[in-house]
Amino acid sequence: MIIREKHNWLRMLFVWRGSILKDILPRLVVLFLFSLLVVFFREELSAYRVSFNPVPFTFIGIALAIFLGFRNNASYDRFWEARKLWGALLNTTRSLARQAITMGGLPENSKQVTSFVHLLIAFTYALKHQLRQTNATPDLERLLPNPLAAAVGQHQYKPIRLLKELGFWVRQAKEEGRIDAITQTAFDHNFNVLSDIVGGCERILGTPIPYPYSLLLHRTVYAYCYLLPFGLVQNSGWITPLFVVLVGYAFMGLDVIINEIEEPFGLEPNDLALNNMSRMIESTLLEMINMPAPTYPKNENLYLVD
Amino acid sequence: MIIREKHNWLRMLFVWRGSILKDILPRLVVLFLFSLLVVFFREELSAYRVSFNPVPFTFIGIALAIFLGFRNNASYDRFWEARKLWGALLNTTRSLARQAITMGGLPENSKQVTSFVHLLIAFTYALKHQLRQTNATPDLERLLPNPLAAAVGQHQYKPIRLLKELGFWVRQAKEEGRIDAITQTAFDHNFNVLSDIVGGCERILGTPIPYPYSLLLHRTVYAYCYLLPFGLVQNSGWITPLFVVLVGYAFMGLDVIINEIEEPFGLEPNDLALNNMSRMIESTLLEMINMPAPTYPKNENLYLVD
Amino acid sequence: MIIREKHNWLRMLFVWRGSILKDILPRLVVLFLFSLLVVFFREELSAYRVSFNPVPFTFIGIALAIFLGFRNNASYDRFWEARKLWGALLNTTRSLARQAITMGGLPENSKQVTSFVHLLIAFTYALKHQLRQTNATPDLERLLPNPLAAAVGQHQYKPIRLLKELGFWVRQAKEEGRIDAITQTAFDHNFNVLSDIVGGCERILGTPIPYPYSLLLHRTVYAYCYLLPFGLVQNSGWITPLFVVLVGYAFMGLDVIINEIEEPFGLEPNDLALNNMSRMIESTLLEMINMPAPTYPKNENLYLVD
Amino acid sequence: MIIREKHNWLRMLFVWRGSILKDILPRLVVLFLFSLLVVFFREELSAYRVSFNPVPFTFIGIALAIFLGFRNNASYDRFWEARKLWGALLNTTRSLARQAITMGGLPENSKQVTSFVHLLIAFTYALKHQLRQTNATPDLERLLPNPLAAAVGQHQYKPIRLLKELGFWVRQAKEEGRIDAITQTAFDHNFNVLSDIVGGCERILGTPIPYPYSLLLHRTVYAYCYLLPFGLVQNSGWITPLFVVLVGYAFMGLDVIINEIEEPFGLEPNDLALNNMSRMIESTLLEMINMPAPTYPKNENLYLVD
Amino acid sequence: MIIREKHNWLRMLFVWRGSILKDILPRLVVLFLFSLLVVFFREELSAYRVSFNPVPFTFIGIALAIFLGFRNNASYDRFWEARKLWGALLNTTRSLARQAITMGGLPENSKQVTSFVHLLIAFTYALKHQLRQTNATPDLERLLPNPLAAAVGQHQYKPIRLLKELGFWVRQAKEEGRIDAITQTAFDHNFNVLSDIVGGCERILGTPIPYPYSLLLHRTVYAYCYLLPFGLVQNSGWITPLFVVLVGYAFMGLDVIINEIEEPFGLEPNDLALNNMSRMIESTLLEMINMPAPTYPKNENLYLVD
Repeated sequence: MIIREKHNWLRMLFVWRGSILKDILPRLVVLFLFSLLVVFFREELSAYRVSFNPVPFTFIGIALAIFLGFRNNASYDRFWEARKLWGALLNTTRSLARQAITMGGLPENSKQVTSFVHLLIAFTYALKHQLRQTNATPDLERLLPNPLAAAVGQHQYKPIRLLKELGFWVRQAKEEGRIDAITQTAFDHNFNVLSDIVGGCERILGTPIPYPYSLLLHRTVYAYCYLLPFGLVQNSGWITPLFVVLVGYAFMGLDVIINEIEEPFGLEPNDLALNNMSRMIESTLLEMINMPAPTYPKNENLYLVD
Repeated sequence: MIIREKHNWLRMLFVWRGSILKDILPRLVVLFLFSLLVVFFREELSAYRVSFNPVPFTFIGIALAIFLGFRNNASYDRFWEARKLWGALLNTTRSLARQAITMGGLPENSKQVTSFVHLLIAFTYALKHQLRQTNATPDLERLLPNPLAAAVGQHQYKPIRLLKELGFWVRQAKEEGRIDAITQTAFDHNFNVLSDIVGGCERILGTPIPYPYSLLLHRTVYAYCYLLPFGLVQNSGWITPLFVVLVGYAFMGLDVIINEIEEPFGLEPNDLALNNMSRMIESTLLEMINMPAPTYPKNENLYLVD
Repeated sequence: MIIREKHNWLRMLFVWRGSILKDILPRLVVLFLFSLLVVFFREELSAYRVSFNPVPFTFIGIALAIFLGFRNNASYDRFWEARKLWGALLNTTRSLARQAITMGGLPENSKQVTSFVHLLIAFTYALKHQLRQTNATPDLERLLPNPLAAAVGQHQYKPIRLLKELGFWVRQAKEEGRIDAITQTAFDHNFNVLSDIVGGCERILGTPIPYPYSLLLHRTVYAYCYLLPFGLVQNSGWITPLFVVLVGYAFMGLDVIINEIEEPFGLEPNDLALNNMSRMIESTLLEMINMPAPTYPKNENLYLVD
Repeated sequence: MIIREKHNWLRMLFVWRGSILKDILPRLVVLFLFSLLVVFFREELSAYRVSFNPVPFTFIGIALAIFLGFRNNASYDRFWEARKLWGALLNTTRSLARQAITMGGLPENSKQVTSFVHLLIAFTYALKHQLRQTNATPDLERLLPNPLAAAVGQHQYKPIRLLKELGFWVRQAKEEGRIDAITQTAFDHNFNVLSDIVGGCERILGTPIPYPYSLLLHRTVYAYCYLLPFGLVQNSGWITPLFVVLVGYAFMGLDVIINEIEEPFGLEPNDLALNNMSRMIESTLLEMINMPAPTYPKNENLYLVD
Repeated sequence: MIIREKHNWLRMLFVWRGSILKDILPRLVVLFLFSLLVVFFREELSAYRVSFNPVPFTFIGIALAIFLGFRNNASYDRFWEARKLWGALLNTTRSLARQAITMGGLPENSKQVTSFVHLLIAFTYALKHQLRQTNATPDLERLLPNPLAAAVGQHQYKPIRLLKELGFWVRQAKEEGRIDAITQTAFDHNFNVLSDIVGGCERILGTPIPYPYSLLLHRTVYAYCYLLPFGLVQNSGWITPLFVVLVGYAFMGLDVIINEIEEPFGLEPNDLALNNMSRMIESTLLEMINMPAPTYPKNENLYLVD
């Protein structure tokens, strides 16, 4: 669980860690220098009968507001839906563990329950590795008996293979007469939910927001920022660069956050902490069968990805 | 239940209690004095060929509108989803109590039903304590038999441990032949819902809105407010501080509300009244088994947290 | 069912009934007179070197747009969710009546089915009375056998008590061998839905939109309207009051609608017609068991609460 | 299924059919003539010291944007929810037909299955007639055996009566030992969905968007359009009427669409094609039991209601 | 699965592939030349006492923002809902395959399980062909036994016919005593979901956003862009065409994207990759029964439709 510091309005103005500023500082410096140039050569510019004024920016601003507003909402929705899917993963694996313990016709600490819970944990890690396209083998070997780990490792869709294994576990319970068809469908209902979670994550990973949106927004933002000094220089004079940089900070900053948030399973600063969440699921499931959770190095840094 | 006073448009203009004004008054005073300084030294400012005018503020305003609009909606959604989860907690514990009473094969006032209902109440309080990171022991000891209270107390995820205990209660009913597998899955369905509620609250608690959003908004608001006097002073003269403070009241006020609402399980003025809601659940569940609810000191203050 | 008149664009400009105008007319008159005063004394005002112009209003306008847009959406969502909950109440009581008729193992017109349907109707009225904090006794006595009506009347959460009674009805059907556990859970599923409906209504009733939002919006609206004449007088002269009143009509009108809509279970003009809906549920359920519905005085007035 | 022509950006500028222009042309002509008058008498107007300028329109524009944005979204949501409900009707009747064919313990082409499917089709038409307040008798007599058609015809809530009949069909299947309680509840689950669909449509039909919203928006739109020539005449001179008509086209056009969309079960040009959808449900259900669908005159006109 | 290149802010400014620019370049050139003409003849224009200025554009801009914002959101919702439906198709076919393997009372590699999985794959392709109105016969013949392929091919609603076939498969399993009614309803639950998916896709295909919306937006966008040079020429002189083209790029570009996104089952550049998704479903289902997936030519081009 994350400990949040009380928002302090004064400190929030000057904090550096977690700020998007460090990502866009070079770009802002370039923009600042460019604005200075514009101010310096403004007389020459008007000599060429090129007269700039702020009016057109209002009209581009409308387009910009629609683009930024839309893409920001769509990206955040992806981020939050991804988070909800991982939340549902936590809830459903807990529910399945509870079902195995209280409805499987087995003592709480039996070997079968333990292996069922390990299947759930392996499922979680397998999903994480699939989404990050990392190597699942070490986690599979740690959590599963050897032949199964090897078999699963050869599959392209490893979480689906493990879901089938969970189904076999329940089938065996039925074949051994420990549960009946009713209880089997109660498990099966939660397997459906797990299947929806896997597919939901694959959907978010595999279908980004249509690319032309990103291009259209990105280009409009930069065209806007680099034209703005021309629009402000007449009225604002030497203070122009200050305002241009302020506007640039807001728009470029938002553009950067959106790009990070949009694909929530990556490894950028504001992506989902899949490592932490997997470990949390592991520890709560193990606690349910009275087993200690492995200790991991605590990730102190709240806003950086695990 | 909360008694609401009819909205009186005149009184709402001058009411002090519940207003955000008292939180931001010092900041507004500072902003007011700063604006006065700007008005006083405006001649000196223009002497330095620094000419301010309102035009750039329109452009920053677009960014501000997007930020404030987004963060406000996202925060309120978190607040309202948290409220819905606690509403679902009320509904589902009531449903489970009804199931225990009418489907458990037991007389309405039997000891088993009473202990089941107490488990549900303990579950509610355990969740509250987990979300507020307060000590659950007194409530657990009050509601549960001693050994169970001690066992639950040692768990990190106490509500999940109690959910398992609820599952054991149903298993025992089945083993004693009072219910069959069908009825067991009817209970189990609601246990799944409780598991979703716990995980949903943990999700809201553990995953704030990405921090850069807050920083970006916060800084843009304050930069905007403190630059505004320069933008207005030419046209508005001595009336400038009035408008600056009015704009500051609106923007800083919204910024403060958003910060409170965003993490709805805290103890700030507009956070959720988890204490009141827990007691309400306790009293309605006890009424269902014809037991009196313990009397708590009535919380007269509607808009302050319990 | 409501008969709606075709929208006629011309008549809609002048219709009085149902308009919000009559609620805010006095306030608009005061605003008009105030604007006239400002126009009359504009020379004196500028003598004091207080120069107003429209620029600052653009900036306050941004805040206002965010506040109004948000609070309007949030209030309408509450209104529409409340309506959906009462729609779900209609659907679910119909489904339960259908289940009692076709799955209860009883003839269609048996006494037990009739008493089950009366329990559903009593549940509906009990919920209405709880939400409006009115006296449920007459309706309970009309619909339930005397001892039960008295018992329910003593409970704080009457709909929940009736839900338990519905559960007892099903338990008896099972104990008498008319239904099995499967059919019992089919009923129970719909009881869960009813429990969600009760809790959903209690949530909307008990948790208003955080009060500071209302205050912040309300005050910004009135500050904006009363400062506006100063901003317009220079450019618009004697036509100023017309525009101020038009802006005031739009903003104050929206503020009033929002306040009514926000708490949809009240008795203000645009709140939900709970009486009509309760009677509609009563008549459709009675029709299902071939009983005539009691006749109520028809409520001719569409837009006034029942 | 509807064949859509590829959007051609040039032709879309000049197409007449399906355009809202023909509905508002007279109003735009009046607005145009009024604007011409304003331009003609502009000197006289300023003689009366009534000076108009565009500034106040910016402020009313904020209100207008909120109103139009909100009402447009709310109306489209109603339209789209109504469409989803009719989509769910298609899905659920198909599911029920599949259940009757594969789970009813009957041969695929048995008389009972045929009569079940006809009940589903009659249900669809009965709902359509209820929503449009047209006469259901011809369709009922076409689809149902005579006594049943007569009985249903006397009910106020005909779809609900047919839902009960569907329940009786399933009860009979159970009484004849063809299905057990499990399969009965599988049917019953889909009956619940049908009940939700009926109630959902009744909700949209019976509860319009609160009337004051429509009035407030409608009046603000017309006040805005008819005051606009005064605001533009100073700067734009003889080109004023062109702009006023363009703004009027956009705002009045949106106002008209919103009014049509808002009540999606009507007979206005953009309302839902309930006839087409009913026939589509009829033909797909009949295809499932290998019966030919009756041929209807094809409705060529895509954008006009059936 | 799609490999996404890291967003590079610099390269994104100049990338050509995937940009909407190539679609609207001719229109932008025409707009540019038109603007040049306006600048060239500006003196003649003012001689006719036709004075343009930027003010009216602000008012049309409000309407434009509402239209673009609404239509963009509505179109993207359609796109994303369509994607979710195809995601649910993946999840549910996987769940059904898992049920057939672990609950069907058959060995994992039995002929019946294989034919069930082929039915699911045929269902997927049949839906794809229905949505794109292409010929399903080759895929049906490839996946189904000959007589069935021929029978399905004669149906108008092929996926529904296959759903019935899936139902027969389960009925046979029950008639052969391999499963009981409980397990049958577990399959049936997922058949209901498939039925909802088919109907959901048909709804999006068959009911576009009301056409007048598209016309109103489209015309306002083009009227706006072609009037804009008149509004800017006075203040901006020879720089006017640059700004007009920038505004035109933003608005026309968004208009084009919206038109593509709105009907997500088509073959335009940003429509859904139904081919890829069908093949992905085929390969994951075959992997579940340990069969190799057919190899298809890899589609390298991320943003072009398959």
